[in-house]
Amino acid sequence: MSMLTYLTAGESHGKALTAIIEGIPANLKIDIKFINDELQRRQLGYGRGRRMQIEKDEIQVLSGVRDGITIGSPVSFTIENKDWANWQSKMDVESVKDSEELSTPRPGHADLAGSLKTGLKDLRNILERSSARQTAALVGVGSFAKLFLKEFAVDILSRVTSIGKVKAKNSPIEVSMLEEIDKSPVRVTDKIAEKDMVAAIEEAQNKGDTLGGTFEVVAKGLVVGLGGYSTSGKRLDGRLCQALTSIPAIKGAVVGQIEDSVHLPGSEAHDEIHFDKEKGYYRKTNKAGGIEGGISNGSDIVLKGFMKPIPTLSKPLATVDMKNKKAAQAFKERHDTVAVPAAAVIAESAVAIVLASAMLEKFGADNLDDLKQNYKNYLKRIKLM
Amino acid sequence: MSMLTYLTAGESHGKALTAIIEGIPANLKIDIKFINDELQRRQLGYGRGRRMQIEKDEIQVLSGVRDGITIGSPVSFTIENKDWANWQSKMDVESVKDSEELSTPRPGHADLAGSLKTGLKDLRNILERSSARQTAALVGVGSFAKLFLKEFAVDILSRVTSIGKVKAKNSPIEVSMLEEIDKSPVRVTDKIAEKDMVAAIEEAQNKGDTLGGTFEVVAKGLVVGLGGYSTSGKRLDGRLCQALTSIPAIKGAVVGQIEDSVHLPGSEAHDEIHFDKEKGYYRKTNKAGGIEGGISNGSDIVLKGFMKPIPTLSKPLATVDMKNKKAAQAFKERHDTVAVPAAAVIAESAVAIVLASAMLEKFGADNLDDLKQNYKNYLKRIKLM
Amino acid sequence: MSMLTYLTAGESHGKALTAIIEGIPANLKIDIKFINDELQRRQLGYGRGRRMQIEKDEIQVLSGVRDGITIGSPVSFTIENKDWANWQSKMDVESVKDSEELSTPRPGHADLAGSLKTGLKDLRNILERSSARQTAALVGVGSFAKLFLKEFAVDILSRVTSIGKVKAKNSPIEVSMLEEIDKSPVRVTDKIAEKDMVAAIEEAQNKGDTLGGTFEVVAKGLVVGLGGYSTSGKRLDGRLCQALTSIPAIKGAVVGQIEDSVHLPGSEAHDEIHFDKEKGYYRKTNKAGGIEGGISNGSDIVLKGFMKPIPTLSKPLATVDMKNKKAAQAFKERHDTVAVPAAAVIAESAVAIVLASAMLEKFGADNLDDLKQNYKNYLKRIKLM
Amino acid sequence: MSMLTYLTAGESHGKALTAIIEGIPANLKIDIKFINDELQRRQLGYGRGRRMQIEKDEIQVLSGVRDGITIGSPVSFTIENKDWANWQSKMDVESVKDSEELSTPRPGHADLAGSLKTGLKDLRNILERSSARQTAALVGVGSFAKLFLKEFAVDILSRVTSIGKVKAKNSPIEVSMLEEIDKSPVRVTDKIAEKDMVAAIEEAQNKGDTLGGTFEVVAKGLVVGLGGYSTSGKRLDGRLCQALTSIPAIKGAVVGQIEDSVHLPGSEAHDEIHFDKEKGYYRKTNKAGGIEGGISNGSDIVLKGFMKPIPTLSKPLATVDMKNKKAAQAFKERHDTVAVPAAAVIAESAVAIVLASAMLEKFGADNLDDLKQNYKNYLKRIKLM
Repeated sequence: MSMLTYLTAGESHGKALTAIIEGIPANLKIDIKFINDELQRRQLGYGRGRRMQIEKDEIQVLSGVRDGITIGSPVSFTIENKDWANWQSKMDVESVKDSEELSTPRPGHADLAGSLKTGLKDLRNILERSSARQTAALVGVGSFAKLFLKEFAVDILSRVTSIGKVKAKNSPIEVSMLEEIDKSPVRVTDKIAEKDMVAAIEEAQNKGDTLGGTFEVVAKGLVVGLGGYSTSGKRLDGRLCQALTSIPAIKGAVVGQIEDSVHLPGSEAHDEIHFDKEKGYYRKTNKAGGIEGGISNGSDIVLKGFMKPIPTLSKPLATVDMKNKKAAQAFKERHDTVAVPAAAVIAESAVAIVLASAMLEKFGADNLDDLKQNYKNYLKRIKLM
Repeated sequence: MSMLTYLTAGESHGKALTAIIEGIPANLKIDIKFINDELQRRQLGYGRGRRMQIEKDEIQVLSGVRDGITIGSPVSFTIENKDWANWQSKMDVESVKDSEELSTPRPGHADLAGSLKTGLKDLRNILERSSARQTAALVGVGSFAKLFLKEFAVDILSRVTSIGKVKAKNSPIEVSMLEEIDKSPVRVTDKIAEKDMVAAIEEAQNKGDTLGGTFEVVAKGLVVGLGGYSTSGKRLDGRLCQALTSIPAIKGAVVGQIEDSVHLPGSEAHDEIHFDKEKGYYRKTNKAGGIEGGISNGSDIVLKGFMKPIPTLSKPLATVDMKNKKAAQAFKERHDTVAVPAAAVIAESAVAIVLASAMLEKFGADNLDDLKQNYKNYLKRIKLM
Repeated sequence: MSMLTYLTAGESHGKALTAIIEGIPANLKIDIKFINDELQRRQLGYGRGRRMQIEKDEIQVLSGVRDGITIGSPVSFTIENKDWANWQSKMDVESVKDSEELSTPRPGHADLAGSLKTGLKDLRNILERSSARQTAALVGVGSFAKLFLKEFAVDILSRVTSIGKVKAKNSPIEVSMLEEIDKSPVRVTDKIAEKDMVAAIEEAQNKGDTLGGTFEVVAKGLVVGLGGYSTSGKRLDGRLCQALTSIPAIKGAVVGQIEDSVHLPGSEAHDEIHFDKEKGYYRKTNKAGGIEGGISNGSDIVLKGFMKPIPTLSKPLATVDMKNKKAAQAFKERHDTVAVPAAAVIAESAVAIVLASAMLEKFGADNLDDLKQNYKNYLKRIKLM
Repeated sequence: MSMLTYLTAGESHGKALTAIIEGIPANLKIDIKFINDELQRRQLGYGRGRRMQIEKDEIQVLSGVRDGITIGSPVSFTIENKDWANWQSKMDVESVKDSEELSTPRPGHADLAGSLKTGLKDLRNILERSSARQTAALVGVGSFAKLFLKEFAVDILSRVTSIGKVKAKNSPIEVSMLEEIDKSPVRVTDKIAEKDMVAAIEEAQNKGDTLGGTFEVVAKGLVVGLGGYSTSGKRLDGRLCQALTSIPAIKGAVVGQIEDSVHLPGSEAHDEIHFDKEKGYYRKTNKAGGIEGGISNGSDIVLKGFMKPIPTLSKPLATVDMKNKKAAQAFKERHDTVAVPAAAVIAESAVAIVLASAMLEKFGADNLDDLKQNYKNYLKRIKLM
């Protein structure tokens, strides 16, 4: 049912990540610098591994854009692995020269289950794709979705809400805060929590340990009426929660203030409806997180994601060597101590893709100008209801 | 990518709900009594509205099953509305005689956003489909999925973990507990919490209020290796969280013990791997909730769902009359006080559908016997890894 | 990618056929009489079996329509088998009393391959779904698509172009001819061919034989720009040819005058482009059959379908008894002598579904009025190009 | 429902074509030379334009293959435009320096309809994607499908059956003939027709004209039981006809001997069934082209495609200049005189993709060895029926 479809490909240490996006309407301006900035926002955050510092991801658009605008054909791009020269001998398509077989699966990763599933014994064959590296391509795709949404004044923001045991205090998030958030080493607005989080990360780092946490993603400016209640597959809450929980290491997603609402009586858990000549129908609260009955209600879309601590540890977990079935330590890979700040950025992209598709489903059209016209008509029509 | 596809249809007070399921392999025994029992489990729970008591849902299978077995063609069924005679004048397909237009949208429902979206002014046109009544058809579909999964010794259970402010203490859930759970008026195993929950429901009822809560769904016996990490759409956590959050009123879903894990260091948040000649690879813990890297790891699949309090209240919320834009009270419909026990049952079905599809994707086959053979081969192969 | 999705279900002699359609916008008027007339047009034609005469198919809409208009929720309907009482003992869902196992597969049907595929030995389990009876549900779905297209002045017509060795001479087809075509016993406009066809059918009937033939389907009034060239799956020629060749017994489909064009030089095989202030861009010829580069070009969409002779014969073909592997005669079922006139009607529906979906993909919208507005904007915009 | 999904991208004169394939099982050997040979087979044929001679397409696999085998992650590849240096100024993603706007649409191409659809005035924005160049990526994808099918001894062949007015005489096609066919300048087996075809091409070339024609594609060795009759979307004839008619310039597709069968009585139009202890069930004829009731019946799959003459002519067709609406000549692009030999090769790939997906749907599995085991079990089971 989705009108915006995409596929991504690429191993963590392969030659390049690739993505193809189908369904972006013609005549959308594409700002390559914006996309590269997004790729670099994904590399932000205190406690990231060395890779984030040495390699700045850059997009190479191969098709679908000409003279700075989309032309209605599929967009494709690659993001090259800048460290490929050092990896080719291990990862070459045709012939691997330097093949140290990994056989001690890391708990918390796809290693063991993936090896059993595919029958491939060298765990590198599993971990290279199951790695979070694939999210760079997702952010590339999401950047196109964001550029599209911006044409309708939709902004998508995120911030970290907790790392390990440290929770941030959160006032309502505004678009104007994004720059400040991105400057924070842990992408928070609460300066006190920031310090505690950095300290917690350092402590974990010193112990060879890792941390998880939570984050929120907010979409502002989305029109009422996207998604649908007619079938399960159209429900916006379901699609958005899937988008978040399909990001590696994200094991839960909730909409709005549901964690509180489950404890409240119905009379206190919903957003009463008001009307104002200027604003039309509006709410004074947003417990629903912008979605009622599976469709956007015009309030901010608010989501929270739960990220587990990174399961690759310098002080490895106990496991079994698949070659001899003996107790062993999980192998080590270069890894981050904490990636919640980055996960929040990735989640923005995951959300943007869903919302861009929902816009296309509702307003159709092969070119941006028609789409804007259809959008305006709709706003005019609902103004009268 | 899904090998088990289905559509449901039907308004809350329409003539009947309908569903069509495509992809169930041939030669699966269908126990109609089991399906009707499942439909009735959906009607369980203290604090349900009158409808649950007067109408026992029953399935009429129209196709796809012959002489008690599936024949490989699409399964279709209806669930009739036993109160249709009283509703026909309001809901007739060709001509509505008795059309009191509803114009005061209920906060928390699709009413307002749905009316703007579709341009239909009578809110009944929205609420009839966005109603949770559609989940009866989902449970019908899920029952077929459960019968299929049972052939592979996969069982899917659920229980309530909190209602309003009352939390249940939870020991590990076992298949043998299901009967007891279903007998509990609030579908819990903790007898003390049961009393408090019933009291809380009575209190809410007396106030014309409603309650939400949380529940868990567990799939036991699932083979390692279902789902996938190669693309977002194959990830089992994403698909299961979508399945849950696409159920009306379910606004969040988490996998395993992630709510705790976000606060733990990586060294304490994962399930170390062990090996035993009899059991093969195994874990002593299940923090991951049975999914690592987007694929099943052989442990129980454990999910938690968050349900908001029902937004239809006897003491209605403030809203606006869409006819004159004046402040008003939301209209009233017959409603439940709490539906968390039922939601947990519905979630079992939602989970069963995803898992049955994942089985079909991995083991292919047009008939159950081939599928079982393929399944056995796989078990034999992974035994050697 | 499709915005109009549907599933059908039902065995040839089961209790009822069922269909669910998702994606029809709200506020479309539904004329039940029109749909029943379409179902009966499918039963037309000289040389049909007894079933067509005794049973007039009728639709029972169960959902998605209220007070004569669509409400945006899934449409479901059943078409009951009026002879069910006589078939229940053979086809009952729970228990078949009267089970004469069929074991002599008919060449040309799914019988043999379907039995091997599903592992089911009684060929009735195969033939009941692979039967052309399922096209009654398709026509039901197509009728909704036609009602939708009519709102945009799109008409879909068909006529027979040959039966057995008899070819009809064909002047251009017009909407005004449809009534006359439907009155013709073989759905042709050429009265001389009509006589020869009837004679050929009678001859075949007398010999216990059957006939195939060809037909054309034409969609008039379709806007320029539907479909797409960006990916294979969007190409309108591919989608329409699939729609036709997915109808049982239709083994080929061609667009426009391609059978002639393959023998012509390029200079004579295309439709030159002209412009007129009133008409805009137009063509004097339509060799392309209304599709260039995978998208509609504003001319009539013209398709031809090839139907094989019905493989169920009164004088059965040679086969093998699957029970003992000995040479045998294929079993007999009640059957038509020729069904090309009906196939053409069915093809109209198959085409309507594809085109309605293509309209929804291009013009989006949840309600018919928005969609019409979007459509008008598009017409206005392209007028200026 | 498809288990093998893919997207392609790329403009005719863009930097590179790209493709991503998802669903190829792990542990399939990938022979890069075979793939490049396939890409070059697509460039075969007398009467091709200059591009085919100067540029040999080569694949760069970027992911999904390691050390010569698939690893279960998405396969991605690019095919670079070797003439990019000469095109960058016209086609650059960010900034086009040399932008001669094309405004005289070619009849028979997507130019006019595509420009109206997308609102883009420079026809280059349309033609670059709607060009047949995109089929190079399709052949790349198809090569992976062919390598997969070879593991099950399935071979896919093609040959030209007519060019312009010249028809080839055709004895049954065998795998052993493929080399000879590829050596023929027009990919035929009939040496007399070959001469006439070459002469016809030369004549067309001299006149600045083009030719179309027909071809056949045959899949040998396919197991009985692929596809399905339960829903339209599973029918193998529909899927294969769509695959063919989604190739640019292919405007029709038929299965088996249907062009003859429409004129025959049923008693002569089907393939009677025989049994032999060694061979099992078999046929002496193959009028059905290997598909009965939407599923493969174990005979060769035989398809015919109809290709229109290439609509880009040296002696251009009449059109209208979109800038001033005056009569004009269509613009010229470098073009082939005839491309039927290449189209047949492309069609092999289109068919391979459908059949590989159908295999995966029936035999499931994440790795090739499991899949082969499942396949063997099936063969063993049906041997007993």
